[in-house]
Amino acid sequence: MIRAGIIGATGYAGNEIVRLLLGHKETEIVWYGSRSYIDKPYADVYRNFFKLVDARCMDDNMEALSKEADVIFTATPQGLCASLVNEEILSGTKVIDLSADFRIKDVAKYEKWYGIEHKTPQYVKEAVYGLPEIYREDIKKARLIANPGCYPTCSTLSIYPLLKEGLIDPHTIIIDAKSGTSGAGRGAKVDNLFCEVNESIKAYGVAGHRHTPEIEDQLSYACGQEVLISFTPHLVPMNRGILVTAYASLTEGATEEKLRAAYKKYYKDENFVRVLPPDVCPQTKWVEGSNYVDVNFKIDGRTNRVIMMGAIDNLVKGAAGQAVQNMNLLFGLPEDEGLRTVPMYP
Amino acid sequence: MIRAGIIGATGYAGNEIVRLLLGHKETEIVWYGSRSYIDKPYADVYRNFFKLVDARCMDDNMEALSKEADVIFTATPQGLCASLVNEEILSGTKVIDLSADFRIKDVAKYEKWYGIEHKTPQYVKEAVYGLPEIYREDIKKARLIANPGCYPTCSTLSIYPLLKEGLIDPHTIIIDAKSGTSGAGRGAKVDNLFCEVNESIKAYGVAGHRHTPEIEDQLSYACGQEVLISFTPHLVPMNRGILVTAYASLTEGATEEKLRAAYKKYYKDENFVRVLPPDVCPQTKWVEGSNYVDVNFKIDGRTNRVIMMGAIDNLVKGAAGQAVQNMNLLFGLPEDEGLRTVPMYP
Amino acid sequence: MIRAGIIGATGYAGNEIVRLLLGHKETEIVWYGSRSYIDKPYADVYRNFFKLVDARCMDDNMEALSKEADVIFTATPQGLCASLVNEEILSGTKVIDLSADFRIKDVAKYEKWYGIEHKTPQYVKEAVYGLPEIYREDIKKARLIANPGCYPTCSTLSIYPLLKEGLIDPHTIIIDAKSGTSGAGRGAKVDNLFCEVNESIKAYGVAGHRHTPEIEDQLSYACGQEVLISFTPHLVPMNRGILVTAYASLTEGATEEKLRAAYKKYYKDENFVRVLPPDVCPQTKWVEGSNYVDVNFKIDGRTNRVIMMGAIDNLVKGAAGQAVQNMNLLFGLPEDEGLRTVPMYP
Amino acid sequence: MIRAGIIGATGYAGNEIVRLLLGHKETEIVWYGSRSYIDKPYADVYRNFFKLVDARCMDDNMEALSKEADVIFTATPQGLCASLVNEEILSGTKVIDLSADFRIKDVAKYEKWYGIEHKTPQYVKEAVYGLPEIYREDIKKARLIANPGCYPTCSTLSIYPLLKEGLIDPHTIIIDAKSGTSGAGRGAKVDNLFCEVNESIKAYGVAGHRHTPEIEDQLSYACGQEVLISFTPHLVPMNRGILVTAYASLTEGATEEKLRAAYKKYYKDENFVRVLPPDVCPQTKWVEGSNYVDVNFKIDGRTNRVIMMGAIDNLVKGAAGQAVQNMNLLFGLPEDEGLRTVPMYP
Repeated sequence: MIRAGIIGATGYAGNEIVRLLLGHKETEIVWYGSRSYIDKPYADVYRNFFKLVDARCMDDNMEALSKEADVIFTATPQGLCASLVNEEILSGTKVIDLSADFRIKDVAKYEKWYGIEHKTPQYVKEAVYGLPEIYREDIKKARLIANPGCYPTCSTLSIYPLLKEGLIDPHTIIIDAKSGTSGAGRGAKVDNLFCEVNESIKAYGVAGHRHTPEIEDQLSYACGQEVLISFTPHLVPMNRGILVTAYASLTEGATEEKLRAAYKKYYKDENFVRVLPPDVCPQTKWVEGSNYVDVNFKIDGRTNRVIMMGAIDNLVKGAAGQAVQNMNLLFGLPEDEGLRTVPMYP
Repeated sequence: MIRAGIIGATGYAGNEIVRLLLGHKETEIVWYGSRSYIDKPYADVYRNFFKLVDARCMDDNMEALSKEADVIFTATPQGLCASLVNEEILSGTKVIDLSADFRIKDVAKYEKWYGIEHKTPQYVKEAVYGLPEIYREDIKKARLIANPGCYPTCSTLSIYPLLKEGLIDPHTIIIDAKSGTSGAGRGAKVDNLFCEVNESIKAYGVAGHRHTPEIEDQLSYACGQEVLISFTPHLVPMNRGILVTAYASLTEGATEEKLRAAYKKYYKDENFVRVLPPDVCPQTKWVEGSNYVDVNFKIDGRTNRVIMMGAIDNLVKGAAGQAVQNMNLLFGLPEDEGLRTVPMYP
Repeated sequence: MIRAGIIGATGYAGNEIVRLLLGHKETEIVWYGSRSYIDKPYADVYRNFFKLVDARCMDDNMEALSKEADVIFTATPQGLCASLVNEEILSGTKVIDLSADFRIKDVAKYEKWYGIEHKTPQYVKEAVYGLPEIYREDIKKARLIANPGCYPTCSTLSIYPLLKEGLIDPHTIIIDAKSGTSGAGRGAKVDNLFCEVNESIKAYGVAGHRHTPEIEDQLSYACGQEVLISFTPHLVPMNRGILVTAYASLTEGATEEKLRAAYKKYYKDENFVRVLPPDVCPQTKWVEGSNYVDVNFKIDGRTNRVIMMGAIDNLVKGAAGQAVQNMNLLFGLPEDEGLRTVPMYP
Repeated sequence: MIRAGIIGATGYAGNEIVRLLLGHKETEIVWYGSRSYIDKPYADVYRNFFKLVDARCMDDNMEALSKEADVIFTATPQGLCASLVNEEILSGTKVIDLSADFRIKDVAKYEKWYGIEHKTPQYVKEAVYGLPEIYREDIKKARLIANPGCYPTCSTLSIYPLLKEGLIDPHTIIIDAKSGTSGAGRGAKVDNLFCEVNESIKAYGVAGHRHTPEIEDQLSYACGQEVLISFTPHLVPMNRGILVTAYASLTEGATEEKLRAAYKKYYKDENFVRVLPPDVCPQTKWVEGSNYVDVNFKIDGRTNRVIMMGAIDNLVKGAAGQAVQNMNLLFGLPEDEGLRTVPMYP
């Protein structure tokens, strides 16, 4: 059995890691870390786990934890993982960091967008970006995984095949994304109260959201040149789900057939990516609770653009599910172990 | 492998049976019956099953199906199962009927409340009411299961221990129930449109809902005398979940301690019933997607009443999950096979 | 023009008073009191008022305010109004208190249920309970109005006619109430986050909610004897609305006809009470944004009980609208001035 | 008093016209037309109007109606108004058509996008596009108003100043729009059931939505050249509201200052357009129930694009409210008569 520890177990992503690992045959959770709820029974914080989890919350001591765990998930605010990780920890334990600390290879860029100093830049290079559909082989050999952000996961997987195949112009990419409210976390803020979010929609972080450089990096790698995008996230009155609607101009000679072939080329063997039939638009509910990414595209012949669409559950493929997928790769397990949950509808 | 057929596979309950059976190790689905969508790929009706289900919808031919299936689930409107079932079918196949056709032992009562003639009253007596927490042993030996209604499941399990132990007065029971909208089915009706349900709550079927006699029967069996109740269901703007708030007067000598002991007596070994700690009220979200029933009670010393509360996912423990639980009992499988899904939160 | 000041203008009830007074022809708002947002433009706190309100938030100085205002609304936590009010203020200004401070005539009972000491018990007796449908004439002459709670308003008006006419047994009253989330206020609490409330329903404050004694007082006055009730509120995933479902046993000789006559007797001239046609159940959405109370009842002949139902918008008739209605009575204005808003649907 | 008739009074837009006209001082409704509910009391179809509207639904006889009404609103499916209108009607009555029949000046284009033959092309030229912020003077003199679509209203007003002033490149405009579900109408369709819409978001009509040519026409008029846009609408789980997020490349020399000046130039005297302060993003809830359009923009210096945002209530400024605004202009009334409703929050 793999012994797993979770630092930040009482956030929504941490809670989702617990849900998924309880259905994972090869893992036991040995540490429910939560600075805010130390000593409180975990099932008192999330009563869905009543009778399923007996443990109490523990502190965030990563070094102590590394002695007891084979893998550590850090589902914590930016900066924490980078401030705790060290050689001793990494030499004995795999670390899957759900924060942004190790996602961006250019430390200066990270520090600028996140407004914090990176405490352990020496590990940035070795960290592997945990998007298995692109970096599977590297992930298998890693000891430190930078688990991708929710928007970057959905955006990258929606756009990747067309960009990689040169079918869209990298300078024309616009990503309009919509997220459920669990993405905003469980912090007690007026802006996230039921009555503030319900029956409304708004953009936020316009032209400045921190996931922008992460998406740009991945898209740049895909096409071999620097890509700048416009990225606008929106808050939607629903619990879970991210929908990405991305726009780009087609390059010369791009046809419906070639576009479909591109998606097929990269995803035909991907278990968790579902390329929908023509004219079927992804809906977040169709993937709810699962690790699937549903993608599709539509050519707008009048404007010579393509609209690329993708849907994920932000807490699963956008966070905890992808983390478990990475763990499976790290430990040589079937990639879908613990992730065979069928989307729940309605 | 148990071969399962579903008649009425394209309703919400049928769809949920599919979701659960896809995670069931000992079952394969051989028949997706749907009068409305014959020949259409099932995954076109419910796209959550894209890449998971290849089959097409078939007609509702129960006799043909009985040749190919070990168990048939009928998730159909009242009257259909009763009109199709016969000795040949029952002699070769187990039938789990999710409609009300075989729940009420008094055929005249059934016909009065449902306003239809019962076509096969000869099977009413043998049919076993599929509430495992009360009728487990009978279920194991049955060939025809009357799978309980959603409200009756939640109501009965919330009240049963106190009534059985004589701790509440059977003549004072009032059940105020609240249900998510999936309970209203997938029929195209104005009343169930998003804009009609959202941001509103209402009672319906007041003093006349068809689940009333079913609940009364179960409560009557529990206390050995005829029980009449007031039952008021309400429609709540959420997809899933039933919450029951039930009221009754305490009998002489009933104490907090005795009440808690009663719940413990009946449920301490029940896997799917969770008696919450004192002062914690059930919430439907804590059981969402799972087969759990969360129950609790609170004494109101000022009025000498007890408030009994219960929460289920109406599509799982209130329909499909309980049906699978019954199937497991019928075939000698672990009762929780396919039902270990952890409640999803948020 | 009546000059109105609001203490606690940045809570949901305060915000609703502003909305209603902006449509009131005889009033101008002279003071937007808010301890939390002093000096901040009010329209920055509630952007619905952008271009409509230029004022900035001010402190909660009731004495200063009383010099400038003809009427003061206190939409503040329990205890504040009682701690601020004095003879000087009351002699020059009308005070409409939306908190519970002056609703309960028995000070000891108030102190017990609310757990705080009453600072100005000398005004409890003179304060008039601001339910115009029952106390209209007293309200007109008052200087201090105890504006009723949201649950008590809906509960009392739903039950009053039958109790007053002796058609129901006072010892059998059970009130099961359901409220939208704005009733929980705008405080930043985890329990009221979108993801915690959405897609769920729960009871809270079972057998101990503070509105219980207030309802009991009103029902006791109606029937001339002490009434104890069971009162259970529930939190519903919607912004606005309260639905009350109340149960009671009928007294000897009570008939459908007599019950209907009772409602007609008390409400036929009441502008804001709408007795729905037989068999139509109130829905909260049908009154949303308006000052209406929709009520109806249904006899359950099998159990000799009646189910009484009522729906209000908790922020209007349950708080701000009723406060404006009281203001109109205090100043001799048409009772519906500023309250002619038609319910918004959907 | 202006006598108003409504054809299609039982759709959501028709219902909203009724709500607004009940608060309009100079209008009485003389005809509640509804093919589906003839002879049924209107308040039985929309119970929010109980005690407010006594009338019964009538048929859709526009000619009969034109004898009794000074103004006719047609809130009906495409094609109906065009098939009914004639010289006799227009010579005696003002017609405000909420369908698309007279919005597009190129009849062939209309017929292609809507797939129907235009029955009265002779009136297309004279019809005035009822967007008062742009065509106010023409509206005053019109007898046939083509009331704009919901998406076109919000899109056009969000983009107009920058395009008109040459600050954005017309060939780069992408409009990503999000709408509440009332925009889908009150028809009984599975896709619009609560459980299908709730907790999900999807794009629809991608690269083919019928509002595309209407928006393109208006934008083309603004900049004096043919504009083609990418327009993608999305369905959001909320009742009301449209949010537009529009993207375009800035032209040489465009600065934050110039952009803000452009909005100010066109909207500084517009009562119903609120240009929000810098960095405040429009939210649909802030305009709910009102005729306001909240707009703002944000420059993305890294990509040289501007993100333009706009929010309306789709049933008010996007349909009924704008229709009433047009009526006011047609009859020389204050433009905001009946439209002073303050946005309702929350």
